[in-house]
Amino acid sequence: MNYPNKKIATKKFINYGKRGMNLENDINESNIYYRSIDKALIYKKPTPIRIVKTSFNEIKGITINEAYYEVPSTTDYNGIYKGKYIDFEAKETKNKTSFSLRNIHSHQINHLCSVIDHGGIAFVIIRFTELNKTFFLDAKYLKDFINNNERKSIPLNYIEEYGHLIEEKYNPRIDYLKIIDKNYLGE
Amino acid sequence: MNYPNKKIATKKFINYGKRGMNLENDINESNIYYRSIDKALIYKKPTPIRIVKTSFNEIKGITINEAYYEVPSTTDYNGIYKGKYIDFEAKETKNKTSFSLRNIHSHQINHLCSVIDHGGIAFVIIRFTELNKTFFLDAKYLKDFINNNERKSIPLNYIEEYGHLIEEKYNPRIDYLKIIDKNYLGE
Repeated sequence: MNYPNKKIATKKFINYGKRGMNLENDINESNIYYRSIDKALIYKKPTPIRIVKTSFNEIKGITINEAYYEVPSTTDYNGIYKGKYIDFEAKETKNKTSFSLRNIHSHQINHLCSVIDHGGIAFVIIRFTELNKTFFLDAKYLKDFINNNERKSIPLNYIEEYGHLIEEKYNPRIDYLKIIDKNYLGE
Repeated sequence: MNYPNKKIATKKFINYGKRGMNLENDINESNIYYRSIDKALIYKKPTPIRIVKTSFNEIKGITINEAYYEVPSTTDYNGIYKGKYIDFEAKETKNKTSFSLRNIHSHQINHLCSVIDHGGIAFVIIRFTELNKTFFLDAKYLKDFINNNERKSIPLNYIEEYGHLIEEKYNPRIDYLKIIDKNYLGE
């Protein structure tokens, strides 16, 4: 089959859909690996859904026939590592020079800061897909940036200065616990 | 309107549906209260749902048209309290003398025991609705019972001996953090 329409062909090549899932998949796989070696118990929370209509039949059981995605009240990932409560959000950007704060809800940032106040470890994982770089940024520096800047996007060099580049490898794909070992637990 | 069919009338009186939601509601309200006084950050996880079919329209956005409930991989509630990772499951029973283990999936019990191994606090909240009593039982004693008994239900007197009766009041409705203060944090 030919693609006479150049626009379609380009879209197929860029493949936004799959790209949007890559970081989530990498983190999920990393968490499965961490659990398999009993290193940490960290899970992605299910997406909250508001159910409007259901039906029942003997074979399939309950079927949901009408429902809508809801805005999550907290973050996507949480769990426990070496006795510490861990909480984070993960986001990708195609931008090469900055991360737009529109990607994260303000109540999610407030939640992450609350976690720090309660003695947990809270951060965001930001992947710059075009640069093939994934960073770990403590929620404290996210909040600091927002409190001290007018602009609605965090420049890459701020993230490079206050965050940590996460090593990407075969297993775990995103070794973010290594950052925690080194920078929070002094190992 | 009369209810000529006794069976239907009884069903209406017992009102299983509403009763099944009471403990969940009480815990959700308690967690909202704990957050409002900045005492703890504990949330109910959304129910996992497998989405089969969605549609899109300009007004409503994405509508889920076919989806199914999935078995949760972990427990319903988790969060942080005084720096400690908290994880629990909540169940109600109409039985007056024992709690059937069929109410909890074995992978949920294993998850709770893993949480303890990783340094967290893990338990079940069990409400005997007919007795108006709600108990806090550490996952350790749940596992101990399973490992040392053939029977598939925990007698009430075991729960009374190894668990803690939770005070029920106006706010928070279920003050389970008080049990943690006293029995885990020595306060």
